[in-house]
Amino acid sequence: METNFANQFFAERTSGIRSSAIREILKITVSDSEFLSFAGGLPNPSLLPSDLLENATEKTIRSMRDVAFQYGESAGYKALREMILEHFICDEGLDVGSICITSGSQQGLDILGKLLMDQKTNVLLENPVYLGALQAFSPYRPNFISLPMEVDGPNLNALGQILSEKKVHCFYANPSYQNPSTCTWSIAKRKEVALLLDEHGVILLEDEAYRHLDFMGNLYPSIASYRRNGDLTFVLGSFSKMISPGFRLGWVTVPKPYQKIFTAIKQGNDLNSNQFSQIVLYHLLLNLDIQKHLRLIQSYYLHQKNYLVHLLNEYLPELIFQDPLGGLFLWVEYPNVSEKKMMERILEKKVVMVPGNEFRLEPSPKAFFRMNFSFLKEAEMEEGVKRINAVYRDIIT
Amino acid sequence: METNFANQFFAERTSGIRSSAIREILKITVSDSEFLSFAGGLPNPSLLPSDLLENATEKTIRSMRDVAFQYGESAGYKALREMILEHFICDEGLDVGSICITSGSQQGLDILGKLLMDQKTNVLLENPVYLGALQAFSPYRPNFISLPMEVDGPNLNALGQILSEKKVHCFYANPSYQNPSTCTWSIAKRKEVALLLDEHGVILLEDEAYRHLDFMGNLYPSIASYRRNGDLTFVLGSFSKMISPGFRLGWVTVPKPYQKIFTAIKQGNDLNSNQFSQIVLYHLLLNLDIQKHLRLIQSYYLHQKNYLVHLLNEYLPELIFQDPLGGLFLWVEYPNVSEKKMMERILEKKVVMVPGNEFRLEPSPKAFFRMNFSFLKEAEMEEGVKRINAVYRDIIT
Repeated sequence: METNFANQFFAERTSGIRSSAIREILKITVSDSEFLSFAGGLPNPSLLPSDLLENATEKTIRSMRDVAFQYGESAGYKALREMILEHFICDEGLDVGSICITSGSQQGLDILGKLLMDQKTNVLLENPVYLGALQAFSPYRPNFISLPMEVDGPNLNALGQILSEKKVHCFYANPSYQNPSTCTWSIAKRKEVALLLDEHGVILLEDEAYRHLDFMGNLYPSIASYRRNGDLTFVLGSFSKMISPGFRLGWVTVPKPYQKIFTAIKQGNDLNSNQFSQIVLYHLLLNLDIQKHLRLIQSYYLHQKNYLVHLLNEYLPELIFQDPLGGLFLWVEYPNVSEKKMMERILEKKVVMVPGNEFRLEPSPKAFFRMNFSFLKEAEMEEGVKRINAVYRDIIT
Repeated sequence: METNFANQFFAERTSGIRSSAIREILKITVSDSEFLSFAGGLPNPSLLPSDLLENATEKTIRSMRDVAFQYGESAGYKALREMILEHFICDEGLDVGSICITSGSQQGLDILGKLLMDQKTNVLLENPVYLGALQAFSPYRPNFISLPMEVDGPNLNALGQILSEKKVHCFYANPSYQNPSTCTWSIAKRKEVALLLDEHGVILLEDEAYRHLDFMGNLYPSIASYRRNGDLTFVLGSFSKMISPGFRLGWVTVPKPYQKIFTAIKQGNDLNSNQFSQIVLYHLLLNLDIQKHLRLIQSYYLHQKNYLVHLLNEYLPELIFQDPLGGLFLWVEYPNVSEKKMMERILEKKVVMVPGNEFRLEPSPKAFFRMNFSFLKEAEMEEGVKRINAVYRDIIT
């Protein structure tokens, strides 16, 4: 009754809006500390050096208050944008005007949806796909097309066929340590995809939120860097995994023809991103040895990943997964169970993972779960895997 | 050429997107310190007590880092939402579930546009109207209808006529110290409008960003409080003017039937608002005597307003404006000049105001400027008014 009443007032686009199971799960785990969560993409905040953080905020309050506690430029605090350009961007031909700071890369996705997607616009997505992109794009009601993926990137035959058959407007891709599949595209495939996209005039939305989380410190060249036409590529980056999601700061590199309108949309969305956080982050980065910090989190995540792999191999040898090269997740197939049933039962045991179908346009008959390894401590991971194992054994026998 | 090339890739909705002259002006004034700006809606950050700010950040970093530097709930940090409910909301029948924290009230406007406005949906706006609302709503391409206003609120005959003739879906109103007109609706008109909206089943989007900025500390009851049907009213609030725009934190009170979908849209927009700032603000508010702080800024703004009024009366007695009861602006008619010419000429003299047509759907033949009085110091205001006066004298003679 209540719902019917309200429904008549909703905009049509709300029919496409999906809520995130991850966020619902996060709410549960926040309110009940007994929960062991493999669900979130939560970096470990203890890797942030407290003294540098305190110095950065003190400096911000004492000597930058007129800037930090005021409105700021819609494209972001200029000194921070310069720093992003210098330290986190490898692509050529960009300048500070190319960098627009966003409230997390999630906002970058929303702005790109607003900028580029009309109702029924063809938008190509990896299968599985990052859930946040579905949430950001869905309200603009594009027509999603699912691209079959392989371990080293897209199935090129399928990609060629789709691009020949349909006018694809943009392709959203997460080529490094993809969330959730963990796949990393090979350099050869990056080049070939760039060529195909150039040939068909397709805009690339390249999400590189995990780029700096390679366990060995490798840096893959972006797909963007292989394109002839730089005007058709937006690259998204994020501080959430490298520094902290608490600041909600990311960026998008925006080709020149789009810069003015991108910034106008950003204005309409929230005027500008949190100025206080931008300036605290700027001062933090001034004093942080970035390379050393990245090596620290990379080796920490590697250690955590190895431990979870070890636990799964020991307790649940039936499971099927790739050993990832970086990122925060394992993407695990649980054979011979129903995803839904497995999920219900582990929640009863107060342990959570994200069910794979959250990341799909069409549900898969196979049970997949995304398992985060960056947040729980070793003993908690072991306890969590034990609980999952008990449920799994119970279901398959 | 470049523009044509890019245009073919833009979503259709981008044709409605408007950039803000205010933000462009802000960019100029930031980069050239000789500019005297009456343009922004900039609160004075020196009214924020440094020691409390430092304590709040120190506490956040030392004892709340696991929460502050992590992802958070999409609806916002619960303790802050409870505080908002207790201190800043007068309306009855709301609970903590009604409060959704947004990245400034600007984001609240964007979410409401996404939630409620289809292409050609009839949306009623005050004339003049807050520019940020135009920016937020325009991409959703509703059909805007302009409502003639009087000093004490809407022209009720006009409102009745519009509501009888057209199916109006929502009415966006800024009834207290409106930006830019500075008008404050009388209590009688709040009641009568509530009645009319109930009668016609119109959703009210009530923007109360300035509610706590009455020079005398008065608090007007919201229009929402007079409605029979609470399910059709969203009220927007903001910390930007009371505390600081640097945190980009505001809130929307959301009726129950809309809460789930409002939060899902918020997720798609930026997952959650800046968690670090939410927790710093929470600790700041714990130790700040809010009522005392509000009285301090109210009397400061009153003093500043009086000084600008005095300057205008002395130098430019031809100007026409209402003496406002609160807020940050004067809304000033400059007789016998062209708005555009006046604007061009004052920019040459390095002084800025916001041209009135920025706040209108259709340009007015009369020249209006919105003049902020909260930011410049007295001597700067006088110098600014002198420069404006020189330009005005030069044009009219």
